[in-house]
Amino acid sequence: MSTADAGRAEILAEALPYIREFWGRTVVVKYGGHAMVEPELADLFAQDVVLMHLVGMRPVVVHGGGPQISDLMRRLGKEPAFVDGLRVTDAETVDIVRMALVGKVNRDVVTNLNRHGSYAVGVSGEDARLLRVGPADERLGFVGDVEKVEPGLLERMLREDLIPVLATVGVDEHGQAYNVNADVVAAAVAASLRAEKLIYLTDVAGVYRDYPDASSVVSRTDVAGLEALIEAGAVADGMIPKLESCVRALRGGVGRAHILDGRVPHVLLLELFTRAGVGTMVTP
Amino acid sequence: MSTADAGRAEILAEALPYIREFWGRTVVVKYGGHAMVEPELADLFAQDVVLMHLVGMRPVVVHGGGPQISDLMRRLGKEPAFVDGLRVTDAETVDIVRMALVGKVNRDVVTNLNRHGSYAVGVSGEDARLLRVGPADERLGFVGDVEKVEPGLLERMLREDLIPVLATVGVDEHGQAYNVNADVVAAAVAASLRAEKLIYLTDVAGVYRDYPDASSVVSRTDVAGLEALIEAGAVADGMIPKLESCVRALRGGVGRAHILDGRVPHVLLLELFTRAGVGTMVTP
Amino acid sequence: MSTADAGRAEILAEALPYIREFWGRTVVVKYGGHAMVEPELADLFAQDVVLMHLVGMRPVVVHGGGPQISDLMRRLGKEPAFVDGLRVTDAETVDIVRMALVGKVNRDVVTNLNRHGSYAVGVSGEDARLLRVGPADERLGFVGDVEKVEPGLLERMLREDLIPVLATVGVDEHGQAYNVNADVVAAAVAASLRAEKLIYLTDVAGVYRDYPDASSVVSRTDVAGLEALIEAGAVADGMIPKLESCVRALRGGVGRAHILDGRVPHVLLLELFTRAGVGTMVTP
Amino acid sequence: MSTADAGRAEILAEALPYIREFWGRTVVVKYGGHAMVEPELADLFAQDVVLMHLVGMRPVVVHGGGPQISDLMRRLGKEPAFVDGLRVTDAETVDIVRMALVGKVNRDVVTNLNRHGSYAVGVSGEDARLLRVGPADERLGFVGDVEKVEPGLLERMLREDLIPVLATVGVDEHGQAYNVNADVVAAAVAASLRAEKLIYLTDVAGVYRDYPDASSVVSRTDVAGLEALIEAGAVADGMIPKLESCVRALRGGVGRAHILDGRVPHVLLLELFTRAGVGTMVTP
Amino acid sequence: MSTADAGRAEILAEALPYIREFWGRTVVVKYGGHAMVEPELADLFAQDVVLMHLVGMRPVVVHGGGPQISDLMRRLGKEPAFVDGLRVTDAETVDIVRMALVGKVNRDVVTNLNRHGSYAVGVSGEDARLLRVGPADERLGFVGDVEKVEPGLLERMLREDLIPVLATVGVDEHGQAYNVNADVVAAAVAASLRAEKLIYLTDVAGVYRDYPDASSVVSRTDVAGLEALIEAGAVADGMIPKLESCVRALRGGVGRAHILDGRVPHVLLLELFTRAGVGTMVTP
Amino acid sequence: MSTADAGRAEILAEALPYIREFWGRTVVVKYGGHAMVEPELADLFAQDVVLMHLVGMRPVVVHGGGPQISDLMRRLGKEPAFVDGLRVTDAETVDIVRMALVGKVNRDVVTNLNRHGSYAVGVSGEDARLLRVGPADERLGFVGDVEKVEPGLLERMLREDLIPVLATVGVDEHGQAYNVNADVVAAAVAASLRAEKLIYLTDVAGVYRDYPDASSVVSRTDVAGLEALIEAGAVADGMIPKLESCVRALRGGVGRAHILDGRVPHVLLLELFTRAGVGTMVTP
Repeated sequence: MSTADAGRAEILAEALPYIREFWGRTVVVKYGGHAMVEPELADLFAQDVVLMHLVGMRPVVVHGGGPQISDLMRRLGKEPAFVDGLRVTDAETVDIVRMALVGKVNRDVVTNLNRHGSYAVGVSGEDARLLRVGPADERLGFVGDVEKVEPGLLERMLREDLIPVLATVGVDEHGQAYNVNADVVAAAVAASLRAEKLIYLTDVAGVYRDYPDASSVVSRTDVAGLEALIEAGAVADGMIPKLESCVRALRGGVGRAHILDGRVPHVLLLELFTRAGVGTMVTP
Repeated sequence: MSTADAGRAEILAEALPYIREFWGRTVVVKYGGHAMVEPELADLFAQDVVLMHLVGMRPVVVHGGGPQISDLMRRLGKEPAFVDGLRVTDAETVDIVRMALVGKVNRDVVTNLNRHGSYAVGVSGEDARLLRVGPADERLGFVGDVEKVEPGLLERMLREDLIPVLATVGVDEHGQAYNVNADVVAAAVAASLRAEKLIYLTDVAGVYRDYPDASSVVSRTDVAGLEALIEAGAVADGMIPKLESCVRALRGGVGRAHILDGRVPHVLLLELFTRAGVGTMVTP
Repeated sequence: MSTADAGRAEILAEALPYIREFWGRTVVVKYGGHAMVEPELADLFAQDVVLMHLVGMRPVVVHGGGPQISDLMRRLGKEPAFVDGLRVTDAETVDIVRMALVGKVNRDVVTNLNRHGSYAVGVSGEDARLLRVGPADERLGFVGDVEKVEPGLLERMLREDLIPVLATVGVDEHGQAYNVNADVVAAAVAASLRAEKLIYLTDVAGVYRDYPDASSVVSRTDVAGLEALIEAGAVADGMIPKLESCVRALRGGVGRAHILDGRVPHVLLLELFTRAGVGTMVTP
Repeated sequence: MSTADAGRAEILAEALPYIREFWGRTVVVKYGGHAMVEPELADLFAQDVVLMHLVGMRPVVVHGGGPQISDLMRRLGKEPAFVDGLRVTDAETVDIVRMALVGKVNRDVVTNLNRHGSYAVGVSGEDARLLRVGPADERLGFVGDVEKVEPGLLERMLREDLIPVLATVGVDEHGQAYNVNADVVAAAVAASLRAEKLIYLTDVAGVYRDYPDASSVVSRTDVAGLEALIEAGAVADGMIPKLESCVRALRGGVGRAHILDGRVPHVLLLELFTRAGVGTMVTP
Repeated sequence: MSTADAGRAEILAEALPYIREFWGRTVVVKYGGHAMVEPELADLFAQDVVLMHLVGMRPVVVHGGGPQISDLMRRLGKEPAFVDGLRVTDAETVDIVRMALVGKVNRDVVTNLNRHGSYAVGVSGEDARLLRVGPADERLGFVGDVEKVEPGLLERMLREDLIPVLATVGVDEHGQAYNVNADVVAAAVAASLRAEKLIYLTDVAGVYRDYPDASSVVSRTDVAGLEALIEAGAVADGMIPKLESCVRALRGGVGRAHILDGRVPHVLLLELFTRAGVGTMVTP
Repeated sequence: MSTADAGRAEILAEALPYIREFWGRTVVVKYGGHAMVEPELADLFAQDVVLMHLVGMRPVVVHGGGPQISDLMRRLGKEPAFVDGLRVTDAETVDIVRMALVGKVNRDVVTNLNRHGSYAVGVSGEDARLLRVGPADERLGFVGDVEKVEPGLLERMLREDLIPVLATVGVDEHGQAYNVNADVVAAAVAASLRAEKLIYLTDVAGVYRDYPDASSVVSRTDVAGLEALIEAGAVADGMIPKLESCVRALRGGVGRAHILDGRVPHVLLLELFTRAGVGTMVTP
């Protein structure tokens, strides 16, 4: 037995208190960015989620796929259009959204996870009508605001030791499909499941007081602190919907929210099972 | 109360013995053809499946989507190619297959069913790796032969009063996705679930002794009869894989197989809940 | 396939929303009158109740049997006597009540239902002492007022997919049997089971504003409306205990009460599964 | 504390090994004779059965009621007729049988038991069609031979800590009721439940080698011994069907059969919980 | 059958109402004194507890073992020391306490009980950390005050038809073992289990108004009465912690507390299953 | 985030395939030697076992305690005596065995484990009479041979997410306690639970071909290989009972047996969760 092996065993043992703490707890991970598109990072992510599952946590993966939607639109000869940064989604586009999210991105995530076991099952908000939405803004067409999450299907999957992977397509009362913002869905799902943690995988190091000054990354704050940051105008535009979702989730009973850098290998394990301070943690 | 109402009540009452007979039994329906593409028939199909579910049966819907795949391929600038009637499926095509089947057709079927309740949940053979396949023929690329169905996920869904809708994408031991013939999958799923019935919705009136002579439709036969028909060369080419699948399913423990005409409104209800003889029934 | 068959299938499909609405709900049916004594109507009633059961409802049948009691009394040489319309019930009569209700009427109802399956089980209020009563009026002897329903036995039967058929014999704290008014028992049982519906099968078309003017049948009213009708003296004497029971049941949490004409074939199916307005519906 | 109390406690303690031995075991008691018609004995019987139930056994009571049937027939002006000791049972008589057995005897047994708790529930073989019969002999009319016992309803009641009290009315495939010999039913029920014991309460001291010589009562024998006794002509005619039923039950998997004297106070407790040798015990 | 047997059966029958009353109820017995050290009494105790278990009660045995601890200390050359009647418990003594209580007394109690079946399982407060304590008094060392009982392990054992036998060793938040007063533990366990009864087996006849005047034993009192007795100085010093524990248990939801004389053979059966008034009963 | 942290995360991720492989599997660990007596090793052992438990395995700890028994004997003035290396165990010694094993060693193991959660529960073979033995040799007194393991209590504990810690005291049919060899018990328990693995923690590096030549440690063999080694006389005397137990366990259905060096820190984690080859693995 080499010294390296001895060190390995010790590191495993050091994970004990973390594993004990999160045993049986639900963790909703909003998946996206580089961690989703770079194959190597995507495989590390899959390892991390399956490991979380095996050591007793109940991970739920939520993903969107804006670039993949735009890409498929262009391949089909349709130019993406946006109003205030939100995608204009006509009937044809909603079809493309479903193909890109449910038929492509969701499949890839499920396949990656299932390389390490038979645990992952893809779902969309249309399945058992779990994600109920209404129109967000008439200029945008079929872009939905979350009205209600029916967590029954997800809860049953978790109880049966499956890992749900949710594509963020919602459905209105007439059965019409909508495109929905994945950050918002992740927060609503976390609240409906009373999750212990809501984790956003992003392409930045966390929440900055003064972007892009790396030394200004906030390592820990709370709902009030987050709201102060937003009001102070310190937060980048793209981050605002995420942070507002965090606030809603924490107010809805979620234990902790985390903004992590998905470009860091095994960032989920680092956050969950080591003392290393990574990204930004937000408490209620 | 009108005479019409009285008649209605009587017709409902006449369904009693059929409902009793099939209560708690699993019925696998291979869905396709006109019944899938014509909106009005699609809605009648959804009503029928939800009604089957509500009166105590356990329907499982299996679908493919050849025309939808070809259509999406063409929209993406790729010409479909076939060898012996089977689609040549390279890596790019398998991606298109998933988008068309899982992201489009499956979504539409789930949405149609869920207009009548929150029962339907879409699955593909990649979810929990339920449909295990191997390569069928090296000339075809990622076209899969069914090696094994792991029915666990479907059984759990049925036990929890959900209607599984299965897109026929399979997965090999490395997690690679394959396109799989839906007729074959339906039979394998029916056998793995020990289904009471396996029903093929087609665009013909049943099995013909002498196509297209309508009077030659076989209303009832058995495995031996079916094999005799195939050997005699009486069966249309397109029907052969269906009939061979029937034979395998019946040998695998399925109670009855039916070839029905999906163009007939409410053909499932007619077959299941009335004395009307429709299509071809095959016994073991 | 004939046109008639097509019509049949369509009618079945039209029952879908009703079946969905009442799935899993408890319906207490007070059974009596012509529907109980005319063999043909009795068989239609049995079909209706078994069908309700098979399509997911939880029917409970409650019956008395005044004429059958009087008949058995006379055959045994005892002349029925009444005070204010209520049967004087001495110790010998209570024995005859039990023979007529439990040993005759209940048996016939159970047998009729079980012609269509093995679902029905007869019970009386003495079984597991589920119907607790006290003396109603000393002049009447063993005529009981309902003090409490212990619904445990009925709930267990419903959970195990049985159809309880309750003969309205009650029991006091000393184990003494009593005759109890079946209309009152039906309402108390419905309240104790938090039933969705309480249905009275009678020999009239419903509640009349001006009996016997058929055009004056009230098709829909509420508790207040019913009380107004009773106060206005518009209601026939025989109907008053039924209506007062309805009021108590609705106040006790029952969803709807219905006064139906048991002489109409399949009146239960008409009420439950078609748009036809039959009889009188009372809302809370 | 008196000496008497000390003695009481000791006697309770001495029951310990018997209680342990029979814990969780099913005991079918055929109830009849003096123990059923003399009120004081009937109350002691009820105490014994409830005590058996409370200390962990699963008693099932089976009863007929020949005298009560004859009595009700006579009160209704119909003279009982017999062929070879078996009652001729026309359609009218079967109705009287049900009134006497289900409406009178069964009610009295249930009521007696429920004076000591809410455990007893009356059932007849028509309930959930648990006792399936065919005609025994065309000269006898509706007298049934047991074809099959469906023990499901009884098993569920036992599992839910209820004491089933079974009136021996059977039902044929058309739903027609039949009168059935209670000794035979008790044995068939015991076999279908794989009972530990089948106990016949009779009006004699047990099986005699030389009736009525009290010293000739057989205290213990086995199936072969019993058959030898029958062949030797030593057994009284009335006892033969009981003994033949014992043989069938023991061959069908029942652990022990007992012929006890129901006129002895607390004879069930004596047999089950003391060393006292009472009646005749038959081993397989 | 002898007269004696008849008497036995009657005595068994007389226990019926008591058995019914306590069926399914939890009874915590603090075991100690002569009943624990005299082999014959110990065997009678074991019979009583197993009988309680078999007739449907859920006994929990709690024991200390002061004399056995002192004895082992002396055998190991260590002189017991006390402050205000409480044992000074240094680290070495706590080790001896565990050997004496868990390794000796608890083993003997479990073995005695298991002579009559395989029901008893020994536990200490360290198992699953069910008995959480803090230091009682710094002069005493590892003598613990009960802070919390985690009843989960005991409840699971009761649910699985086991008899827990608890040695009163507690554990603090660091895993350090403590010696804890068994009277206090019994009361805390009874309250945490919402026990029906808490029974103290002692070496006196009950609570005396004027010790040792036998005629002054209080046969029944309540919490207020007990507190009055304590304040009046009527109670012997050794009895005070027991009585204060009774008060806490009764205030914590326990139904009844009893001070019984463990020297009386079968005193548990006498108290539970006969009308004999033994010892002192305390009501809330 | 430091490089060290990154390394940690990677090491955790590398444990994934091992965790997946052993998820839900039972592992019986025979605990003893230095790993039990050196506090630091004892704490590492506790961490390892709790970690095994948390990541989904079902560990069962079995321990003896020869030195602790001898030590307590001497402290109590009794000189240990041996015949053929086995302890002569008179009645007084059996008492000391119980105090040392159940009251001392078992307590220490449970306490150590429970520093990392509330999972461990101590049991001895007397609890629910789970370890049934007979006398091994009349010269030895109360030294037992294992006759039967009743695994019910252990299985229930595992099902309820507890870690059983078994002291190897057995019990004969009269309730007499016996001292039993812990190596033998561990193997019998592993077979009765159909364990995936049986692990012996020893004070040597594994099985040697040529003791003490470190290069002769056998890293992998099978039952036949082990028997050859024993026959060849290559195995040290003290190791023979362990190896014979391994053979019995592997023949009884256990998946793998391991002889590990308990002096190596975290040797359990090394064996289970890394590629490092440690000690000797024996396959069936």
